[in-house]
Amino acid sequence: MNVVFLSIGNEILAGDTVNTNVSWLGKMLTELGCHIQAQITVPDKHNSIQEALDSIMKNNPDLIITTGGLGPTEDDITRQVIFEYIGTDYEFDEQYWNKLKQRFERFGFDIPESNRSQALVPIEGKVIPNSVGSARGFQFKVDSTDLIILPGVPAEMKSMMRESVIPYVQSQGVSTPNIKLLRTTGIPESVLIEKIQPATDKEHHCTIGYYPSYHGVDIRLTSKTQEDLTILSNEISNILGHLIYTTGKIDIADVIVRLAVKKSTTIATAESCTGGLIGHRITEVSGSSKAFLGGVIAYNNDVKQLGLGIQPSTLQNFGAVSAETAEEMAKNILSKFQADYGLSVTGIAGPTGGTKEKPVGLVYIGLACKGNIKVKKLQFGDHRSRNKLRSSQSALNILRMALIDA
Amino acid sequence: MNVVFLSIGNEILAGDTVNTNVSWLGKMLTELGCHIQAQITVPDKHNSIQEALDSIMKNNPDLIITTGGLGPTEDDITRQVIFEYIGTDYEFDEQYWNKLKQRFERFGFDIPESNRSQALVPIEGKVIPNSVGSARGFQFKVDSTDLIILPGVPAEMKSMMRESVIPYVQSQGVSTPNIKLLRTTGIPESVLIEKIQPATDKEHHCTIGYYPSYHGVDIRLTSKTQEDLTILSNEISNILGHLIYTTGKIDIADVIVRLAVKKSTTIATAESCTGGLIGHRITEVSGSSKAFLGGVIAYNNDVKQLGLGIQPSTLQNFGAVSAETAEEMAKNILSKFQADYGLSVTGIAGPTGGTKEKPVGLVYIGLACKGNIKVKKLQFGDHRSRNKLRSSQSALNILRMALIDA
Repeated sequence: MNVVFLSIGNEILAGDTVNTNVSWLGKMLTELGCHIQAQITVPDKHNSIQEALDSIMKNNPDLIITTGGLGPTEDDITRQVIFEYIGTDYEFDEQYWNKLKQRFERFGFDIPESNRSQALVPIEGKVIPNSVGSARGFQFKVDSTDLIILPGVPAEMKSMMRESVIPYVQSQGVSTPNIKLLRTTGIPESVLIEKIQPATDKEHHCTIGYYPSYHGVDIRLTSKTQEDLTILSNEISNILGHLIYTTGKIDIADVIVRLAVKKSTTIATAESCTGGLIGHRITEVSGSSKAFLGGVIAYNNDVKQLGLGIQPSTLQNFGAVSAETAEEMAKNILSKFQADYGLSVTGIAGPTGGTKEKPVGLVYIGLACKGNIKVKKLQFGDHRSRNKLRSSQSALNILRMALIDA
Repeated sequence: MNVVFLSIGNEILAGDTVNTNVSWLGKMLTELGCHIQAQITVPDKHNSIQEALDSIMKNNPDLIITTGGLGPTEDDITRQVIFEYIGTDYEFDEQYWNKLKQRFERFGFDIPESNRSQALVPIEGKVIPNSVGSARGFQFKVDSTDLIILPGVPAEMKSMMRESVIPYVQSQGVSTPNIKLLRTTGIPESVLIEKIQPATDKEHHCTIGYYPSYHGVDIRLTSKTQEDLTILSNEISNILGHLIYTTGKIDIADVIVRLAVKKSTTIATAESCTGGLIGHRITEVSGSSKAFLGGVIAYNNDVKQLGLGIQPSTLQNFGAVSAETAEEMAKNILSKFQADYGLSVTGIAGPTGGTKEKPVGLVYIGLACKGNIKVKKLQFGDHRSRNKLRSSQSALNILRMALIDA
């Protein structure tokens, strides 16, 4: 099924909004087996929308999805332009208008007159319900092309896709490709590719995509048959082992919470340069309170003493960014919070504050568990935010490996 | 100056990459006074690129910027397609090839043969240098349209825009609009709009844009004359006062660090439901170590006692999510870390864990300073991640207001 997306909105072109709708739709429909031919963004202008539709229709796609321009304000002209493009009359849906009125009243507002446009329905075509907002969508047939009109608010667009459009696309008999995601961390892309060559050099009938980010490298395998996919995916998994932290669309923090809950262990953190990011990432996971006790953000050296009981002599002799401090931080948070695992990070996030001996990006990670303590030294770059992210990812990965072995 | 963006890349259409290039370019060029007419994404396919260029050229824009497809792999066909579209011959740039070779050698690699394509230069047109990567860009004239070809890697594209394209656009005599950004927090969009009506109802010759997010509502004023802009901006500022936290493109955490450093005060945090997010946001700011001492992430109730010394009776009588606990958290972190300000947050992030009396989204924020303690109660929704973000924003705003008064 060939698909084209038409995004409508001045705010996208002026860069005030990042068009995440398009990437969400692209991912969703590609995974359903659709082929995305093109994507166009035009302003909220009558001619621009019409010309874009004309030019898209020249290639006869099976499906066009437009997003945006269904709100109640004067700028929102998509509804009107599309009714005209289709050549359909429309009528006022009194019942829906009363429903909208009631919804506004429930929140203590009078409904503005401008919302009346959202109660207009075309004579031809179908209405697509919106269970989370007031802008309903529409579906038309133009020659053999399905034209689907959705609002631009991401939460509304997504819910309407899930409830109406995706079931419709599936009913059209697209052949869903077999996909397997392998998320890795702690290994650079080039080294990873070389490492799995014994598997990828063979004939495997799969498409392999590599997607590096500061979280690691995701490998995505796509294949026409489940069998081909399983063979290759198993071979790669055998080579990479625990370098793969999940085959689901989840964060490493999610993996850790699941592992820790399963093994009934508890975690506490002592963060310096990451400043709370590790705690933040773990607590993004619903249910993390079962495993995560809390932590100390020991940013300042005095706080390393006051909050974590780090010996002044350790700080004096080795410095705040040292293996010795990381070790004491991990050990002390474990005993202080009576946790099973104590995870610590200390480093120089940058962009300033480095020396010749201890450059920006130098990070020590400590992990304490039942009298055992490990410390790892890492060297990142000079970008503050990225250093924090990469430090948190490395620390979480060290904790994950320990939880697997527990 | 009318501009069209052409993004080239399968990964964008399949949703593997969010097209942040387009929003960056849109923002940059709109602020320079350009008008973005449209944006198109096509796959790395000969016909698709050519057809898109033909259809864009029909509207005779002043400038077309393409991004993507200049890498060294087989998929990267933009260079070849564009040379053909222009009808220009090309030659191999031996000098650049040697430079590339040396760069690879410095990092300990042999340069792959596939990189040779990056040393091709057209006879017609100009080369746009790339100071951060190997893919150089090109600039051509097609009738009266400037056609600019850039790589898709964001860091490379941005540096080439800054070093070459933006100076060129500015030299073409576009009239830069006057822009003023007013970032507000703590007031809903509709209330904000009503509140500033005395200013906006007058004739003001400005364009007003409202951009709501979970951080608050940004107001962007644009005008042809600086005078008109100053009048309206002053009137709105007089009405809103400290509801505006900055007129710069910075986060509220940045504002707090600047204020605290200026007033030589120190900050410590006691976070429960935000799990470290407040510490993370403050430590994203370079130089935050001058004001931020650290904090305790007291997620678990035992840790609230062990790490913060909260009285068991407080937890028993009022619960972990209560004004009393928030108060004690703020007071205790202040004295424990010897800070000037103690900021605390306790709440139910959700999506589960609520009761009838204490529903999901209930949050208490405490701020202690020199014996003074204030607690604020807030009620958010049932989305975990959003509740954490909104809680952190509210807490930071309470701290900001206190720092202003200090």
